[in-house]
Amino acid sequence: MAISRQRFGRSCGAVALVLAAALAAQGDEGMWLFNAPPKEVLRKNYDFEPSGAWLEHLQRSSVRVNAGGSGSFVSSAGLVLTNHHVGADAIQKLSTPENDYMARGFYARTRAEELPCADQELNVLVNVEDVTARIEAAVKPGASLAEAEKARRAAMNTIEQESLEKTGLRSDVITLYRGGLYQLYQYKKYTDVRLVFAPEESVAFFGGDPDNFEYPRYDLDICFFRAYEHGQPAKIEHYLKWCRAGAGDGELVFVSGHPGRTDRLDTLAHLEYHRDRSLPDMLRLIFRREVLLRSYGERSAENARRAQKDLFNLQNARKALVGRLAGLQDPAVMARKRAEEESLGREEAGHPGAKDFQSACAAVAAALQTLRKIEKDLMLLEQEQAFRCQLFTIARTLVRLAAEQAKPNAERLREYRQSNLESLRQMLFSPAPIYEDLEAVKLADALSYYMERAGAGDALVCKVLEGKSPVERAAGLVRGTKLRDVAVRRKLAEGGLAALDASRDPMILLARQVDGPARQVRRVFEEQVEEPLRQAYAKIAKIRFAARGSAAYPDATFTLRLAFGVVRGYTTEFGQPEPPWTTLAGAYRHAADHHNQEPFALPRRWLDGKDRLAGRTPLNFVSTADIIGGNSGSPVVDRQGRFVGIIFDGNLESLVWDYVFSAQRGRATAVHAAAIEEALRKLYDAAPLADELGR
Amino acid sequence: MAISRQRFGRSCGAVALVLAAALAAQGDEGMWLFNAPPKEVLRKNYDFEPSGAWLEHLQRSSVRVNAGGSGSFVSSAGLVLTNHHVGADAIQKLSTPENDYMARGFYARTRAEELPCADQELNVLVNVEDVTARIEAAVKPGASLAEAEKARRAAMNTIEQESLEKTGLRSDVITLYRGGLYQLYQYKKYTDVRLVFAPEESVAFFGGDPDNFEYPRYDLDICFFRAYEHGQPAKIEHYLKWCRAGAGDGELVFVSGHPGRTDRLDTLAHLEYHRDRSLPDMLRLIFRREVLLRSYGERSAENARRAQKDLFNLQNARKALVGRLAGLQDPAVMARKRAEEESLGREEAGHPGAKDFQSACAAVAAALQTLRKIEKDLMLLEQEQAFRCQLFTIARTLVRLAAEQAKPNAERLREYRQSNLESLRQMLFSPAPIYEDLEAVKLADALSYYMERAGAGDALVCKVLEGKSPVERAAGLVRGTKLRDVAVRRKLAEGGLAALDASRDPMILLARQVDGPARQVRRVFEEQVEEPLRQAYAKIAKIRFAARGSAAYPDATFTLRLAFGVVRGYTTEFGQPEPPWTTLAGAYRHAADHHNQEPFALPRRWLDGKDRLAGRTPLNFVSTADIIGGNSGSPVVDRQGRFVGIIFDGNLESLVWDYVFSAQRGRATAVHAAAIEEALRKLYDAAPLADELGR
Repeated sequence: MAISRQRFGRSCGAVALVLAAALAAQGDEGMWLFNAPPKEVLRKNYDFEPSGAWLEHLQRSSVRVNAGGSGSFVSSAGLVLTNHHVGADAIQKLSTPENDYMARGFYARTRAEELPCADQELNVLVNVEDVTARIEAAVKPGASLAEAEKARRAAMNTIEQESLEKTGLRSDVITLYRGGLYQLYQYKKYTDVRLVFAPEESVAFFGGDPDNFEYPRYDLDICFFRAYEHGQPAKIEHYLKWCRAGAGDGELVFVSGHPGRTDRLDTLAHLEYHRDRSLPDMLRLIFRREVLLRSYGERSAENARRAQKDLFNLQNARKALVGRLAGLQDPAVMARKRAEEESLGREEAGHPGAKDFQSACAAVAAALQTLRKIEKDLMLLEQEQAFRCQLFTIARTLVRLAAEQAKPNAERLREYRQSNLESLRQMLFSPAPIYEDLEAVKLADALSYYMERAGAGDALVCKVLEGKSPVERAAGLVRGTKLRDVAVRRKLAEGGLAALDASRDPMILLARQVDGPARQVRRVFEEQVEEPLRQAYAKIAKIRFAARGSAAYPDATFTLRLAFGVVRGYTTEFGQPEPPWTTLAGAYRHAADHHNQEPFALPRRWLDGKDRLAGRTPLNFVSTADIIGGNSGSPVVDRQGRFVGIIFDGNLESLVWDYVFSAQRGRATAVHAAAIEEALRKLYDAAPLADELGR
Repeated sequence: MAISRQRFGRSCGAVALVLAAALAAQGDEGMWLFNAPPKEVLRKNYDFEPSGAWLEHLQRSSVRVNAGGSGSFVSSAGLVLTNHHVGADAIQKLSTPENDYMARGFYARTRAEELPCADQELNVLVNVEDVTARIEAAVKPGASLAEAEKARRAAMNTIEQESLEKTGLRSDVITLYRGGLYQLYQYKKYTDVRLVFAPEESVAFFGGDPDNFEYPRYDLDICFFRAYEHGQPAKIEHYLKWCRAGAGDGELVFVSGHPGRTDRLDTLAHLEYHRDRSLPDMLRLIFRREVLLRSYGERSAENARRAQKDLFNLQNARKALVGRLAGLQDPAVMARKRAEEESLGREEAGHPGAKDFQSACAAVAAALQTLRKIEKDLMLLEQEQAFRCQLFTIARTLVRLAAEQAKPNAERLREYRQSNLESLRQMLFSPAPIYEDLEAVKLADALSYYMERAGAGDALVCKVLEGKSPVERAAGLVRGTKLRDVAVRRKLAEGGLAALDASRDPMILLARQVDGPARQVRRVFEEQVEEPLRQAYAKIAKIRFAARGSAAYPDATFTLRLAFGVVRGYTTEFGQPEPPWTTLAGAYRHAADHHNQEPFALPRRWLDGKDRLAGRTPLNFVSTADIIGGNSGSPVVDRQGRFVGIIFDGNLESLVWDYVFSAQRGRATAVHAAAIEEALRKLYDAAPLADELGR
């Protein structure tokens, strides 16, 4: 699951101070389930009571962008507003060297001009059902870990398939509280999605990597899609009203979106694992790939265009992970976690749960020991880091699709469950361009990394390379495969196992060659790491709820959550006051401060149109709402549920939120409704689009 | 020892083919000692016999740039020509935001305008003496490794000091053939060095990282310094005559310079160590730092200026190391090494040396096993990767200088031997600017890396961090130290041990804190890795000489060597013929092909002056001479010993030369004499400088 714009990352010296404050903080923490909103806190602190209708309206107006991000309906005719960086994958796939919509922007003046996206899927959550009892009943008492994992997976696949058959809705069983709760989420799905509007990337991501996760900020990080049904714009009942005035300083706001992942429940041992193993490992790969793609991109403007989206994702992830690691490398963070764990242990000491807590923590540590042993193979083989390129992913998907479809639904790998196949096929048969040269560069690097990590003498490495160097083997694979052709993919998918068996396509042969070992390490991971972690965290969660009722929201799972907070500036650790919002005039000043040079170069359209804009229009604003990567594109609404802005980032001081929340300096950053309307009307000549907002 | 422009790097698919040819190749291989030139090959293949006078003239015209690179005297008044990228460290140190000579270039129209460099040292080799017998006699038969290491170091330090006292010349004992031969090199030293001319970096490094190690190439990678003595331009007896016409296609040329390091003698086990451990480790650090410096540099133009030289060095090293690794990851390269080793073993089988050969190979493998155990501490503590920033290096140098000066010369660490102190002090007291913000960024990253590699629970890590996060600790150290002030450094250096003991400077305290463990791992390395490797390779070298007399040149050691070859184009593995030289007109075409965008943007001066230039003037040319990193700036001369060009790069296909030479496609790349003169006269209004060349 790709989560767009992971927010946590980047080094910040203020972590210790933030934490000291966090210990005292109550306030605006939490990514709440819509069916368990923080009613008491809202009533007590903000004198606000969300009605059932208020909640349902906001829920149904919220959109999950399946590729990784959030959004909202903002018109009755299916208009969806999300971030430019969430839509960038689709925009990039629609672009060519001649029509580079990433660079130049795009606006469809008529419905006919709206551009169908290759493989965009939007989900709207329409129903939630608790299935905990059924899942837990499926796991017999005394079941081994392997039996438990298998039984649980079978139950989930089956529940989803039943739901799909009964309702026709996309149906996902979601694991909440790391296994404390299971819920069936039913989504209405839109797959005919068309691009309506995108600004130039230079203003959507104004300030580039240097300004990413910074504040003050000046980005028009938006784009519009339209959901279609039966070839017509979708008729939408629940969409957000538009409030150009936005929210004032100190005003209560809500964020409805899909935070991707948090680790707030993690034990100390688990955080140490992140700090010592998984984060450094991921970062090493990211550094390597960032350098690779930069080098590739610098060879020509066209190369740069081809690598742009990958590079953005890498840089964004890198900044987030560096910050997460910096948080964990701060002894104050770890000391706080340790104190909390010890205090929980003490509180529980007299209770019957005390032993449970200790044994659960021990089980987590034991599962992580197992993970340390298999993490390399898992990452190389199952997570495809040894073969990282689009063509290999396609080959593996074809190979596994044939194998999994031949099994009963209940026994399949999760991503091949019947209820997920339509989404999977949409990606598999995407006509989006695949660039042979870029694929060869990426695969050569991946194979070299494989040799480095697994060892040049490793039997599978030798088999995979066939006596060639990584560069030579990669070139042969990319030149030899026919999988760039969608028709070839379709034919192989339709032909099932027989077609796969008969295929001599070199990439298919490679995917088959490594499938056994990959599945094997995955099975060990699922049975001996994931399953014991799930069982242990389910116990820990229950104990924590008992002891700390107030923190009773689950870690993020890329499913719909409600956060709240107030629009509010803050004072940096150096005593610098930062304002609650920036303005359009500020964007021009920021560009001038950097001589309007990349990545601080405003588009020509903005430079020419400066005099037409009201300089005091708010551009970006910050609030104390609790967000994380995946929230990108989430609507910010006021008490009346009206759209006042769209989340696109968090500041540096929010990077520690993956592990612990604090609103002392941490802030969620959003584009203001007024700037969106002002830019559409005065710079982009897009009054019809602006007129449609909220209508 | 920093070697500028390491040439080996970058992935190339052609390695297998290159090697197949290499097995047959004889030809132009070799980095020969001036006192053992390849007379027979030259006579046989080129009908050329270098006279003693010819050799002496070329030797004394050749200059070693101590910071890492080569150059030559090109006038009787001390004018030195080297590469821009070799001089860049000095140019950068002379630059300020207001006078950015890296960006704008520099030309001193009068001697008075020539800019004294902060810490530039030039060496000219004037005498070589064999001291093998004396060194070997110092090591008593049956000495332990520790005793042998100590005795050898003492002998070397003593010989150098005696030579310095006797001659006043810089005196270095050089280890050749990995310990097969020891020679005393005596250098005339110039430390008053002034910048005369530098072009804009954009044309010196035209094409940037994408074009680095590529061909065809279009770089004016030159700059001029002048050596001064007693406040006057040095009077030079041996300097190169200038030959604007250059060398024709197929013509014999020579390269006289200082190749930094090759590994052609390495055993298979040693190459595997490079492939599996040292190269991946170094690359991971480089990737990380490249990303760090890019991020820092992108924040503003001034940041970019500050990071420029570091970033260039990292990118250059990265491209070189990726290529070296790609070579070693090619099974064909390893197969060739294995075959050679087996064949040597077979040839020796009947001889008394057979057992020696096997036991020497086993000793190499054993030493590398020890190295594997200590390499992490060695790299972190002794090689300063845990504290990497200029201020720490200064602090450590002060701490060690005081301790080592208190010892007899014979017992000191090599770099603190009496004969090296003047060079060391020049660097230590350099007034070159040190940027606090950049230092803090680098040190924070280094400390984070230290925590990652040594472990958060490591006792020394905890002591070093003092309970703070890496970011916070780094900021405190950089803000707290006074070592940016040269006067403070001088005072500490003059105060000796007492001053160091009394100092509360936090960086000094840190350097003292880690000095014990750093020295300890260094001792293990010197006694249990370096010493046995030296003994083993001395044996292997002797056996190889006996079996393969033709390859009797030593691996590169950043000392003066003579290479030879012919000017010649080549055909790429894709069948594309590449010309022996490019032209000035080609540079303009190359810029236009890339829309004159960075890094393919020619300076304004070049764009404006295009019509004044003769487009057909040769700009860069290639030859088959055997070079490696450190050769940057080496003069290319013809049979008459006249300057025809200056080495600045090797092509992609030459990257494998670290391990094995082949002239099938590998080429050394040089700037042509004609382009230098044409640019000076027609673009830079520097006729007086052009007139001085060769005079």
